Amino acid sequence: MSVSSLTGDLGWTMPRGVHIVGTGLIGTSLGLALIRAGVDVTLADVDEINLAESINRGAGRLRTSSDSAPQVVIAATPPGQVGAVLAEAAVAWGDATLTHVASVQSATMTDAIVRDVPADRLVGSHPMAGREISGPAGARADLFDDRVWVICPAEGSHPDHVGRVKGVARACGSTVVEMQPENHDAAVAVISHAPQVLASALAGRLVGVDDSVVGLAGQGLRDMTRIAGSDPTLWSEILELNARSVSDVLDAVIADLGRVVTSLREASSSVDESQVVDLLIRGMVGQARIPGKHGGRGGDYEVVSVMVKDEPGELASLFVAAGALGVNLEDVRIEHVLGRPSGLIDLSVRPQVAHRLREGLTREGFDVRA
Amino acid sequence: MSVSSLTGDLGWTMPRGVHIVGTGLIGTSLGLALIRAGVDVTLADVDEINLAESINRGAGRLRTSSDSAPQVVIAATPPGQVGAVLAEAAVAWGDATLTHVASVQSATMTDAIVRDVPADRLVGSHPMAGREISGPAGARADLFDDRVWVICPAEGSHPDHVGRVKGVARACGSTVVEMQPENHDAAVAVISHAPQVLASALAGRLVGVDDSVVGLAGQGLRDMTRIAGSDPTLWSEILELNARSVSDVLDAVIADLGRVVTSLREASSSVDESQVVDLLIRGMVGQARIPGKHGGRGGDYEVVSVMVKDEPGELASLFVAAGALGVNLEDVRIEHVLGRPSGLIDLSVRPQVAHRLREGLTREGFDVRA
Repeated sequence: MSVSSLTGDLGWTMPRGVHIVGTGLIGTSLGLALIRAGVDVTLADVDEINLAESINRGAGRLRTSSDSAPQVVIAATPPGQVGAVLAEAAVAWGDATLTHVASVQSATMTDAIVRDVPADRLVGSHPMAGREISGPAGARADLFDDRVWVICPAEGSHPDHVGRVKGVARACGSTVVEMQPENHDAAVAVISHAPQVLASALAGRLVGVDDSVVGLAGQGLRDMTRIAGSDPTLWSEILELNARSVSDVLDAVIADLGRVVTSLREASSSVDESQVVDLLIRGMVGQARIPGKHGGRGGDYEVVSVMVKDEPGELASLFVAAGALGVNLEDVRIEHVLGRPSGLIDLSVRPQVAHRLREGLTREGFDVRA
Repeated sequence: MSVSSLTGDLGWTMPRGVHIVGTGLIGTSLGLALIRAGVDVTLADVDEINLAESINRGAGRLRTSSDSAPQVVIAATPPGQVGAVLAEAAVAWGDATLTHVASVQSATMTDAIVRDVPADRLVGSHPMAGREISGPAGARADLFDDRVWVICPAEGSHPDHVGRVKGVARACGSTVVEMQPENHDAAVAVISHAPQVLASALAGRLVGVDDSVVGLAGQGLRDMTRIAGSDPTLWSEILELNARSVSDVLDAVIADLGRVVTSLREASSSVDESQVVDLLIRGMVGQARIPGKHGGRGGDYEVVSVMVKDEPGELASLFVAAGALGVNLEDVRIEHVLGRPSGLIDLSVRPQVAHRLREGLTREGFDVRA
């Protein structure tokens, strides 16, 4: 089943006026994207420095007393503040669609309902986009382009309000996927929230070890711990609001790891490899399920490796040659080497053009590796 | 402390003749690298297909009855076979240095000693290089260039034999780091073996989940599970031979995760964020310790983002422009987008040239993002 078959793009309406509360990375990016689409955007934030920077970057304007009510209010705050922000907006504008962009859906929805936000106007949403940096300075109009935007109607959400939130997502360039809040939360627990905890736990093991140990680290560890650099305050809030789903995944991981440890500790006396092999094989199978670029399956591409000097212009000549061969590069990975001025470039291409690329680059004198 | 201050490059001698047992990815790459350095390389393998392919690729030749004894024998087999291979070689050639390239040191050394391999001729070694593919077809003469090569003398290793193994490492283009076997094993448990288990455990969570869940996966999950695609048979052997060190790390991770789960499950009633925040902050600190490219600290580079069309030649023109500006690209990351023909390219450069690159690319009409 492809992502496109899951889209819920029907019945959307482009909102004319959108009010965004919260002008960090996501809120400011939303403003930039909506203005790009011709929407009238107003901004608010208790953080006046962020607000000023966001306005300065062209993400929207302040509301004035002569403004008509916004059609959509988006809480682009940390998830714990969504309910309060939407409750205030519900009172201020009696017809506005009330939504947010937090990575937790059930808890934010419950909190909003408890605060008397009318369920018919309430629609959860979560654009699957972000950066490891925060604040309006990192915002981009294209942050949501070609991303999946999950929309989670509340029980009782009126279709007109759902349609407006879909309109926001489409205006921002995203593909809409409709999910139930609890299904969304279970999904992001597996693909995002629990991985965040695992990355932090693994990276945390490096605290206090000798420099000589860290000095042996390679690309595998770098890739596995990259997201451990994310904002701990925001992430602790996300994890607590999705506590049950995240805990369920972590419990399963703990059980998996526990079986491996038991098997390994026993292995010195008896030999019970089955638990270890089983985990490794399940990992292979699971890894193969992760979609690659453009929603395709991982492993759809063939890798052509080329050794180049680590100097200005070297990469350029490689890419010029690839372009001249009419070969589109799906991905590029520069293998990190230690201390010396050369680098191995892995070019991922569609299998049917790999041979042409290899032959062509070799003919051009490039150092193509097997 | 930099990696270079840890090197143990003193007292090396370049061996004239090296015999390699095992012609998979590592053995064949060793042969190619040593022949590149002018060493006489002979090859052996119980797998005759691999052996023929390795010879065909120019990684070495078969031994003949007129050959003099090799100075160094390298077991490039799965770690469980190292002891037996070196024991056989010890009998066949009474003066040869006996070494291997397995990622486990203590267990292989103990096994060799038990099999009467003379300790004075025994030297463990582990080049920190590899690929996720296996077999001689993936071998490369440059696999070890600029990598760290850990050398673990046995208790009683004679300095002459240690010097020859250092010579092998240097001939292959690596930087030598000397460590005690148990320190090596504890180090790779943290930076390689336990991460392998975590990647597999995480990827294994994707088995059986709905396609709609996997469809939400982003770059973070892709990076964290990439190594889960590695060979399960080889890895189960590695993990079992380094069982104690790996178990120690996994036990610590399990304890960390357990504290997070306890804290999260309690959070619905009381509020004890401390365990969650503590783990996330430790993760940040640990992640910052991982060296980046060329042994520099991670985060030394500034990222310049450029949106390009996903067409042949588009990347080329970008790299040509960067080269013309005299800017060396330290790393390139193509952000994966869903279904649409455009891609965001993150160029990592030294901070002092980031401004020049941004200005220059913008002047050339590139779509540079903040």
